Amino acid sequence: MSDALGPGPKSRVRRLPAKANYDRDTIFAIIDEAPLCHVAGIVNGAAVVIPTLHAREGHTLYLHGSPSNAVMKAIVERGEACVSVTLYDGLRLARSGFESSIAYRSVVLFGAVSLVRDDAEKARVLDMFVDAVLPGRAGEVRAMSDAEVRLTMVVAVRIDEASAKMSSGPTDDPDEDLDLPVWSGTVPARILFGTPIPDVNGAMADGTVPVPASVKRLLDSQ
Amino acid sequence: MSDALGPGPKSRVRRLPAKANYDRDTIFAIIDEAPLCHVAGIVNGAAVVIPTLHAREGHTLYLHGSPSNAVMKAIVERGEACVSVTLYDGLRLARSGFESSIAYRSVVLFGAVSLVRDDAEKARVLDMFVDAVLPGRAGEVRAMSDAEVRLTMVVAVRIDEASAKMSSGPTDDPDEDLDLPVWSGTVPARILFGTPIPDVNGAMADGTVPVPASVKRLLDSQ
Repeated sequence: MSDALGPGPKSRVRRLPAKANYDRDTIFAIIDEAPLCHVAGIVNGAAVVIPTLHAREGHTLYLHGSPSNAVMKAIVERGEACVSVTLYDGLRLARSGFESSIAYRSVVLFGAVSLVRDDAEKARVLDMFVDAVLPGRAGEVRAMSDAEVRLTMVVAVRIDEASAKMSSGPTDDPDEDLDLPVWSGTVPARILFGTPIPDVNGAMADGTVPVPASVKRLLDSQ
Repeated sequence: MSDALGPGPKSRVRRLPAKANYDRDTIFAIIDEAPLCHVAGIVNGAAVVIPTLHAREGHTLYLHGSPSNAVMKAIVERGEACVSVTLYDGLRLARSGFESSIAYRSVVLFGAVSLVRDDAEKARVLDMFVDAVLPGRAGEVRAMSDAEVRLTMVVAVRIDEASAKMSSGPTDDPDEDLDLPVWSGTVPARILFGTPIPDVNGAMADGTVPVPASVKRLLDSQ
């Protein structure tokens, strides 16, 4: 076990606490595996949630977006955010609907929000987003321009408190259900990447630009 | 095009409006394909987002949870909720990091919230959750008990306003990037279900309970 990020006043899991986990490395691994997250803010007095990309470095979760994004503006103005990250791992099929659910790993985190203002630091973090989408990709594309850096809002969420919930393995049917003639078990699920579809414009038109190492590694790893 | 669910004051997409879609059937299809959603509420004055399962019937999105769930309690008390549903469809790799992103289909919806109180109606809706996790499964499991129905809070979100955002296909590199010797294209991604893992207890112990039709259909469909 690594350091704990909870439970705290915001992060304590009340429902199914046996599935709860506050271990830092467990939480960070879920965040890093997820291709996207959902962030909530208060907009015009109501809670609003949107999907967005993320990149983590240590105890900081970076988000980015257009400076006109209402949720991003809201969390910056308020100085705090809640972010949820969820991985779908398949089906857990019990003898009853009540005990049936999905397999998943999820994180809910809470933290102080600050705007990243320094252009050099923004450029560094934006490259982290590129690598979060596909490891190694930032080194393959052309460098971020000053204009691109200025066009993007980068937000740092300090991970102050977090909890993970994980559900996997056999279902928890009550004893009286076990002899029912109902199939029970799990069906694992994962993300499968398919054959890359190359662009056909510019230097890509003649098919001589090779599939990059980042994509090859992704496909080889599955 | 079917009826529009937006744009309205809450649902208008400001960032990348060309990716926005307010068509009802498009929005419903994304909701129905997603295995889970994220719902936001205001808890102790702060926006909180959690993952949860959902089931849709017409313009109603049903959520369920423990009566002790803070976010569920918050949206019921307030009488409104925001829910986001996001499907990850792969990578869109441009010549620049700035134009690179993921392929996705997402929905953000807003609606009035009410508690489903009638036990017979709750039981009916809870079966819809079982079928939302795996179509046809509700008819294969033992019926929901009265106690199970009473233990679960069922919430109806009337889909008053919603927007979809979708991103797919070739990247939108600026002309001046097209001749860079950088591979560009898309890498599609989908959820792949693996071999079912049967439980080993009770009637499942001797391996005679056949894999159910619901699971077979799921596996045959991919």
